Formats: sequence, structure tokens, C-alpha cells
Amino acid sequence: MAVQAAQAASGTTVDSPAGGPGTVLGPAAALSCRECGERTPLGPVFACEACFGPLEIAYEFPGGGTSGPAGLRERIEAGPDNIWRYAPLLPVPADVAAKPNINPGFTKLVQADRLARELGVTGSLHIKDDSGNPTHSFKDRVVAIAVEAARAFGFTTLSCSSTGNLAGAVGAAAARAGLRSCVFIPHDLEQGKVVMAAVYGGELVGIEGNYDDVNRFCSELIGDPAGEGWGFVNVNLRPYYAEGSKTLAYEICEQLGWRLPDQLVVPIASGSQLTKIDKGLKELIALGLVEDKPYKIFGAQAEGCSPVSRAFKDGHDVVRPVRPETIAKSLAIGNPADGPYVLDIARRTGGAVEDVDDPRIVEAIKLLARTEGIFAETAGGVTVGVTKKLIEEGRLDPALTTVVLNTGDGLKTLDAVAPTTGMSAVIRPNLDSFREAGLAS
Amino acid sequence: MAVQAAQAASGTTVDSPAGGPGTVLGPAAALSCRECGERTPLGPVFACEACFGPLEIAYEFPGGGTSGPAGLRERIEAGPDNIWRYAPLLPVPADVAAKPNINPGFTKLVQADRLARELGVTGSLHIKDDSGNPTHSFKDRVVAIAVEAARAFGFTTLSCSSTGNLAGAVGAAAARAGLRSCVFIPHDLEQGKVVMAAVYGGELVGIEGNYDDVNRFCSELIGDPAGEGWGFVNVNLRPYYAEGSKTLAYEICEQLGWRLPDQLVVPIASGSQLTKIDKGLKELIALGLVEDKPYKIFGAQAEGCSPVSRAFKDGHDVVRPVRPETIAKSLAIGNPADGPYVLDIARRTGGAVEDVDDPRIVEAIKLLARTEGIFAETAGGVTVGVTKKLIEEGRLDPALTTVVLNTGDGLKTLDAVAPTTGMSAVIRPNLDSFREAGLAS
Ligand SMILES: Cc1ncc(COP(=O)(O)O)c(C=O)c1O
Ligand SMILES: Cc1ncc(COP(=O)(O)O)c(C=O)c1O
Ligand SMILES: [Zn+2]
Ligand SMILES: [Zn+2]
Repeated sequence: MAVQAAQAASGTTVDSPAGGPGTVLGPAAALSCRECGERTPLGPVFACEACFGPLEIAYEFPGGGTSGPAGLRERIEAGPDNIWRYAPLLPVPADVAAKPNINPGFTKLVQADRLARELGVTGSLHIKDDSGNPTHSFKDRVVAIAVEAARAFGFTTLSCSSTGNLAGAVGAAAARAGLRSCVFIPHDLEQGKVVMAAVYGGELVGIEGNYDDVNRFCSELIGDPAGEGWGFVNVNLRPYYAEGSKTLAYEICEQLGWRLPDQLVVPIASGSQLTKIDKGLKELIALGLVEDKPYKIFGAQAEGCSPVSRAFKDGHDVVRPVRPETIAKSLAIGNPADGPYVLDIARRTGGAVEDVDDPRIVEAIKLLARTEGIFAETAGGVTVGVTKKLIEEGRLDPALTTVVLNTGDGLKTLDAVAPTTGMSAVIRPNLDSFREAGLAS
Repeated sequence: MAVQAAQAASGTTVDSPAGGPGTVLGPAAALSCRECGERTPLGPVFACEACFGPLEIAYEFPGGGTSGPAGLRERIEAGPDNIWRYAPLLPVPADVAAKPNINPGFTKLVQADRLARELGVTGSLHIKDDSGNPTHSFKDRVVAIAVEAARAFGFTTLSCSSTGNLAGAVGAAAARAGLRSCVFIPHDLEQGKVVMAAVYGGELVGIEGNYDDVNRFCSELIGDPAGEGWGFVNVNLRPYYAEGSKTLAYEICEQLGWRLPDQLVVPIASGSQLTKIDKGLKELIALGLVEDKPYKIFGAQAEGCSPVSRAFKDGHDVVRPVRPETIAKSLAIGNPADGPYVLDIARRTGGAVEDVDDPRIVEAIKLLARTEGIFAETAGGVTVGVTKKLIEEGRLDPALTTVVLNTGDGLKTLDAVAPTTGMSAVIRPNLDSFREAGLAS
């Protein structure tokens, strides 16, 4: 048992020599180290054997000719209304759309004219609204890719550590795919999130401790026979999982008519999503699907958990961990693994990393709801709040095309707005009472 | 003031003689009485002047030739990924897709193979999952149409009586459209629903009383100067509003490859949705967009509010009102306005109306979540539960193509499953504790 588990952890590889559509994970050719560039065959591994750096997917995309860029755009446009339209650019089998999967993505890109007016934006402002995903957060994208990796590596149980969004996404995706799931959460999570994570019928295990304890426990479990056959979407399947965020970049550009936006505002927890959006944009340029022009990526954090923003302002290359204290719980990672990469992207593209405090997060949630009818979770309050701040400070150009991400749903973070959101009046059921309340037209 | 209000209530009409694309509300030609057939010009009226019967939209669809059926299918398929792709069949202006609107619809039709297996379905079983709409219920469809009618009639305030789903849909749609909103709810609604209804920044008024009191008050307000310029989506705009449910029929057929399903299972509150789905299917047949073949419509109610099911079983043509007592609150209308029409459709198509009790609603919510990763609200538990019952009793043919509607989102009715949905175990963060809990693979 122990030997088998060690094998699983160190590299049950799949055969994918050319990266063509006939191979197991499509165009994924290998894993490559983001630090030293060392290549490893595809497998359920996440750290470089040479330097312990994080691994990511290296691709061999179809070249020119009939299968190349010219045909690719039409192939994408003729594809399904979900992330699988981009299957040729993802680490998934070519026939992925035919398998049971929750099929996230192709969420709305909302032209936010009324918000633009309030913020003084004269160019075009868009909200990429990922609350439209099956479990109402962008996590469905990353988990959908992890499911395909789990299948390719023969895992029968899908797992993760989570504080909410991810637990629901893993539970739902495993159910649809017919996989077992076992998800770990801090034992004192709010009841709503517990129900949402448990309703799909997988195992839901509360850990006596905080999110860091949960994480540490999962790392232990991966190396142990008890966790044999388990794919942890955000640990041993992380290189695959993370690529799901590229689809946000693809969709934004396609929905803008195959054009790059000038400016993007992206939330940061671990920083993975932001780095993969940048990766996706660069791929579209390299493949000739969009014209090569500059774009700026802005990262957004909550002031109560702003280690990347702090480092950006201080001009540091490394991120000093913090203890999170904010209502934006889905972004509350005090030691973000991709922090240094985020700093590099913000600086290289001419963007920035900024933060907003909790009252401004709430204000921004309400601003977005009031102007566009979109009820965002706290992560969306963070991006809209940071956008407002950057415009007020003249650091985001109001005359350009800007895309702001809302990555989750307000229904999951009701507590953030509940204390200041309620009835205008309570009246008796008659017209006199109504008129007294001053609500008549 | 009183005179103006009376005018508004009795018919501010729009000019739509031919129903062509140049007219104000597209193919909508007039209002016609569902009881006596009497025609009235388009306007914010809902009851027949001759017999007080309910009014509905009468259409003049484009005939044959270049604008007819042959071109229509391609025009629809080239349209946006929302209900406006069916604009030529709806009471909306031809340029509707260019206006700010929450753009609901084109939600997923999920091939539910794992659920089918559990239910013993050998044909193909599909869930039409309307939890993917902007505010996560099918109400976004009907409200989006009402917004266009409100604009056409010059209303500046959007209003409704609601117990939850509708309030959120109206708040969001009004915000996006830049209309004022004022929504009426019973004063003792759950906090979650209050927050969701209030966050969009409109007026939210609690009424001291139950839903019936709220409804009565709204009817009073329509006839009073205090409500001048107000469009009540489910009262004076009801004929337009109701048509939104036709889009469920259109989408289901298009997503089946322009084919009619053999059997549909639809929830019943007022019964409006079911009757409009039937209307939509008949239109597609008449327009030649699907082949003319029989289909059966099954209506689903909660046992605790099953007046239509009762009448169906008793062989009655009229529905005797009941006092609702069920966890399926969104379906808890004890005196359903469209009850008789529902009975007629169920009998005419060879379907049925059936009900399930609250424990089976909860069981069905969990069954759907566990097999397909879809977390439905109680209304979805009702349809899945009724489907199961009908199959067990041999009244729904398991060898045919069946579509079951999930019209809302489980996140809004957490209370229904919370008492029986939680953690499998709580453990200390170490492997021994994990193994003791018996969760190892
Ligand atoms: C809603 C939401 N938005 C954004 C993020 C940021 O993700 P990342 O860790 O990739 O920076 C998360 C992460 O949990 C999230 O839950
Ligand atoms: C979630 C949900 N499903 C179905 C219905 C049924 O609608 P109808 O009144 O058209 O029968 C409602 C009505 O409120 C609802 O809220
Ligand atoms: Zn390395
Ligand atoms: Zn009449």
C-alpha cells in the first residue's frame, strides 16, 4: 500500500508525447517548473524535483496550416457554450465535452454603462460575471479541469481543502462525474456553506482547527496510504486545476469580439487566477487570435488581507505573510503562493495591486447591485471597490476598455451586507399607511 | 390625478397594428380574453372588459416566404445566448437585445444519465436547470419581458407582490434597466430573502400581513393615484410577464435539436408557467419549427398545497382553494389563477397533475444533487419527486424523452435541507483521527 501511494504521489504519468488531439490530455505536453524550467512528464505532481518550485502545464499547440490559428477561431466559435469550446487550449481530452461534467463557463460579460457613469468611466466598462457558473463561483472552472485530470490519472475520489466556494464546486463536479468526494473544511464554518458543501452527498469532514490546519492535514494525507487514489484538486492536481482560470481570459477576449481589453481588474487570494489570466492572454496573442497590443492587469485585495498589495507598494519582490482579518473570506489567504508572480505581472504590464477596506467592499457590492442588478460576493466588492479607488486616484484610465471580474455570488456572503440592507418601511396593508411612509410616486 | 390613473389602468395603448418588426412590441398584435375571445388593444390591462376573464397576448407572426419559418430558425440560432434569440416570438421590440436588461435564459439542459439510472429511466432524461438565471430562478424570464412592457407603456416604477424569488428578480431587472422599483413582501420574510430583495437599492416594503394581504394591497394601489406610473409585473403587466415562460418551451426544443420532448414535468404555483409552456410548444409546431407530434405535460405540486392535483384526481374542472402548508414556499399559492387551464392541458395532452409530501421533496432535492450535482430549490424537489412517483406508478413512460424543470436555486431554500445535511465527521487534524473516523479509501 505504502509503495503504491508513493508511486501515485511521485508520478503516475500519462502518455502525451506530441500533445495532439489524440493524446490523453489534449495539447498538454509536460509539466514544467516555473522557477528552473525543468520538465517532468504529466502526472499528479505539483513540485519540481530539482528545486521544489511550482509546476505548471507546458503545451504544444497545433501549429499553422489547417489545424492552426486560422481554423482554430472557427472551431472555438462552433463549440459548446461553456469552457470546453477552448478544449484545444486546455489540458483535457479532445472529447471532453461528451463526458458528464458540470460544464462551467461562458458566463456573461455585462456592458456596465450605469456603473461606468457613476465611476466617471468614459470608455467601455464590463463586468465578467462568474456568479452565473453552476455553483455560482469561478471555482467551477478550475474544478472542471481537475476532474479530467483525476480521470486521466485513475483517481476515484476528488478532494480539497476549502472554506466554502471550492467545497461546493468539488461536491457538485464529483457528483456529476460519478466520482466519490471527500472535502475538508474548518469545523466552525457557517451553516449555509456547510449545507452547500454537503448536499451533493460526498463526505464532508470538519477539521478542528483553522484553514491552515486543514491545509496542512491534506498535505499529510497525500503522502499516506489513507489518501491513496485521491485527487486533491488544489494540491496534487493543482497544475491542471489552475489552468481553468485561463478560460476567463479566453472568454473575455472572445466576448469583446476577439480583442484584448486595455485594463483588467482581478481579485487575488493565492494569486493563481491572476497569473493564469495573464497566461491565457499571452497564448491568444501567440496564436494570433487577438492582435498583439499592451494590456494592464490590476490585482485587487481586501485591506484586511493585503500582503501582495503591501509588497507592491513597498517595491518588494517577495510577499510577507499576514494574518487575514476581513469580510472577504474567499480572498483571505495570508500567504499567497503566487504572490511574487502577481507582482511581476502587475509591474510588467503597467498595472498595480491595490486594496480596499471592509466598509468600501460593502459599499461596492451595493453600488454594483444598484447600478447593474448584479449581486456580487465580497470578492466582487473588492474588485469593484479597487476599480473605483484606482479611477479616483487617476491610476486606471477611464477612457479605455476595462473589464472587472466578479468571481462569486452575493447569496453566499449575505452576512456582509445584511446589517445594512433591509426594508425601507413596514406598513399596514392600506393606502393611508402607504402614503404616510412617503413612498407614493 | 385620479382620472389619469384610471386611464392608465384601463388602457394606455401602444400602436401595433400589423405586428411586424417595426411595431412597438414586436409580433404582439392585441390582448385577447382567454374566456370569451374578445380583443383589446395592447395596454397595461389584465382583465377582459366584457367578462372579466384573464387577458393574454395574441400574436401575428411573420408568415411564409423570406421572413417566415424557413428563415426564422437560422435567425434564432444566430441570436444572442439568452431569451432575446426568440424576440420574433415575444411581445418585445425587435431591438430588445440592444437595451440594458438582465438577459436571462438559454440555461443548461442537462442530460441526467445518473439520475435516469436511479429512476429506472431507459429513454433520455433531462433537467432544464433555470437556477443558472441571473437571480437564480425562472422569474428572471418573466420579469425581463415585463420590463419591456413597462418601457413601452411609459411606466417609471417596477413593482410586484412577492414572497422571495420575484422580489429579487424585479429588483435586479429594474436596476439594470435604470427604472425605480418598489416591491411588496410580507413583513416576516426570512432575512436571506429580504437582503436579496433589498440589495439592488429599490424600495422594499414589508406589509403587516400574509401574502394574500400583500396581493390585495397591490390591487388597491393600482387603482389609486399613489400607484400612478407603476408597472406591477404580476398584476397590470401580467399578460406580458406571463409570456416569458414560453421561452422555456422554445429553449427545451432547440436544445433537443429542434425536437419536442415526449414528456415534461412542470411545477405549479399559479399555473401560469405550465400553460405558457404549452402555448410555446404549440407555437413551435404551428410555425413548423418542430414536427407535429404528441407530447404530455405533467404538473407537479407539493402535497401541502395541491389544489390542482386534487381537482385532477377528483375529475373536477374547477379548483377549490386551499390554505398552503409546505416547505415549497415558492409554489405555495392556494388559489391558483390558471388552475382550470392547467387541468385542461394535463387532460388534453394525456399528462397528469400529481403531488409529493415535504419529506419526499427533501429526498428529491438530495437525489438530484447527489446524482447530477444540481442543487435545486424546493420547487425542483417537487418536480423531481413527482417524476419519481409517476415512474414508480407506471404513469410516466421511462423509455421516452423526458424533461424535468428545476426552476430555482437551492441556495435560496437552505432551510429545507439544512436539518438533515451536514458534516460526515469532525476530526482532529491528524491521520489517526482520520482513520478512526473510517473515511480512508
Ligand atoms: C470567489 C473567489 N474569487 C477569487 C478567488 C481568488 O483565487 P486565487 O486563489 O486564484 O487568487 C477565490 C479563491 O478562493 C474565490 O473564492
Ligand atoms: C421557483 C419557482 N418555480 C415555479 C413557480 C411556478 O410559477 P407559476 O405561478 O407560473 O405556476 C414559481 C412561482 O412563483 C417559482 O417561484
Ligand atoms: Zn525547478
Ligand atoms: Zn372576456
